[in-house]
Amino acid sequence: MVTKLKSNIDIEIYLTQQKSLIDEYLKKIFIEGNNYIEPKELWDAVRYSLLDGGKRIRSILCLACYETVNQDKVHLNDCLTVCISIELIHSMSLIHDDLPSMDNDDLRRGRPSCHKAFGEATAILAGDAMLSLAFELIAENTKTITAPQKLELISILGRAFGFGLVPGQILDLKASTKQRSKIKIEEISRLKTAELIKASVLCGAIIGLKNKNITKKTSNESIIKNFEKFGINIGIAFQIIDDILDVTSDTKTLGKTSGKDRGQNKSTYPLIFGVEKSKKMAEDLIKNAKSNLVEIPYNTTLLSSISDFIINRIN
Amino acid sequence: MVTKLKSNIDIEIYLTQQKSLIDEYLKKIFIEGNNYIEPKELWDAVRYSLLDGGKRIRSILCLACYETVNQDKVHLNDCLTVCISIELIHSMSLIHDDLPSMDNDDLRRGRPSCHKAFGEATAILAGDAMLSLAFELIAENTKTITAPQKLELISILGRAFGFGLVPGQILDLKASTKQRSKIKIEEISRLKTAELIKASVLCGAIIGLKNKNITKKTSNESIIKNFEKFGINIGIAFQIIDDILDVTSDTKTLGKTSGKDRGQNKSTYPLIFGVEKSKKMAEDLIKNAKSNLVEIPYNTTLLSSISDFIINRIN
Repeated sequence: MVTKLKSNIDIEIYLTQQKSLIDEYLKKIFIEGNNYIEPKELWDAVRYSLLDGGKRIRSILCLACYETVNQDKVHLNDCLTVCISIELIHSMSLIHDDLPSMDNDDLRRGRPSCHKAFGEATAILAGDAMLSLAFELIAENTKTITAPQKLELISILGRAFGFGLVPGQILDLKASTKQRSKIKIEEISRLKTAELIKASVLCGAIIGLKNKNITKKTSNESIIKNFEKFGINIGIAFQIIDDILDVTSDTKTLGKTSGKDRGQNKSTYPLIFGVEKSKKMAEDLIKNAKSNLVEIPYNTTLLSSISDFIINRIN
Repeated sequence: MVTKLKSNIDIEIYLTQQKSLIDEYLKKIFIEGNNYIEPKELWDAVRYSLLDGGKRIRSILCLACYETVNQDKVHLNDCLTVCISIELIHSMSLIHDDLPSMDNDDLRRGRPSCHKAFGEATAILAGDAMLSLAFELIAENTKTITAPQKLELISILGRAFGFGLVPGQILDLKASTKQRSKIKIEEISRLKTAELIKASVLCGAIIGLKNKNITKKTSNESIIKNFEKFGINIGIAFQIIDDILDVTSDTKTLGKTSGKDRGQNKSTYPLIFGVEKSKKMAEDLIKNAKSNLVEIPYNTTLLSSISDFIINRIN
């Protein structure tokens, strides 16, 4: 049975529990394991950026999508390995985004950003190692899923990164020096944020669906299409709320420099549409996301509650 | 039959032919293909760094090792896809190494380095996209090899990068500010250069051996071990010759800034051992590499000739 949720309090408890599960798994691999010791500064920089901090929303979505379509615990560890890969990709993208030649941000998750703490060279190289490791872990550390499935996950995450996050960051950097436009910001949000959220949703759904006893190939394809749309919708909503919080929240609550988008002349939703209209746009996207969930023939209460959380979050 | 070589002239013709084969395949994918168009500056930076230039020695070794153990042309295209992955990893490591916060090198392959031509942010992001693409291509663009084999290749290249090139560059940067030592330089050369050369050798050998009609698993394992040792030996020899050329050659012949190691106070073989002793060390490594080849029950004339070329090359 899919995790039962009765109220907003339940979803916060659920999110906290899932975050702990992911954080513990990350610590098991990167602190208790013997693979990440030398050179010390390299893996210290990785641990610094990867552990303690982060909402783990992408990983939580991956696990929740898996749980929605499949209650067999046997693939849960493989799903967690994929979550580690997702967190590695997300964290390394933040390390590189924060660099002086990019967003030049000194603060991340309430602490000095990686290049401030470890120097620029180590920060770049830590990000590089994390990216490579994300793919390697899926190839090496998954046990119950098939080899073609592992390749499919590598492909999904590779595309989300190389054809999502990277082009998104290129356009974002350009947008801060050029004219802002509505089309541009939607494209940037989709590439930079929604593609990896979509990939996280897809990874969980695919591990779950393709490992069910009954194979319903055609049906699975249409289910996966709806997960894909769901991921894009909540992904863009997530970015809009992020932009709004940058304007309305303070640095302490955010854990990163508040107002930094404005300082960097960044193209953001509140800047183009105002806070109220931006909020309305995010709400519409969540509505769309929920209509995608209706098309998925499983109990999607959990995913619906996570969607509500995304729009109501304060950091 | 393995490519027949009768003289030094033959090996140079062979290397030129193989380089053309790899360059054409790279162009087919990155110029003729439709996947690498937008954002233009991103893929232009990738093309700038990846095409036109480079000896392709790692890819040539991959193809030569495949050809040594298997003459079936059916896997040649998959082998070429892996060569593209190897070149992507090698090129992106050069882009990041050249950055101001690392080696701060303005020249690469006779032209401005990537960050000089495209700016630092685009150079970092181009490198990131290339790294991710290296793994994605193996997952998506190989056709005749099995899924477990693809995962093995991803794992080999992932390890060579995250536990070879990256730690090697970290140690190399440290070595330029701290005390030089014999042990350190051997470790740096192994990590930074020999691990990817070993991986290239292994990828070719594995594609070849595991796709032969007769499966001799135990025997294959010992053959692969010898390929591994061969790769490390020629890899370190390659780095020693590179260090020597940095001292003895001029910028035009090298295609990169000559004497830059000394300028950066880098730990190099000639600096620690002198040119003559360094040359002798490289020769001994090539001798060892050839003794590894003797243990491989195939016609290894081609690999032996490539080993000789590595030590006699002028750029």
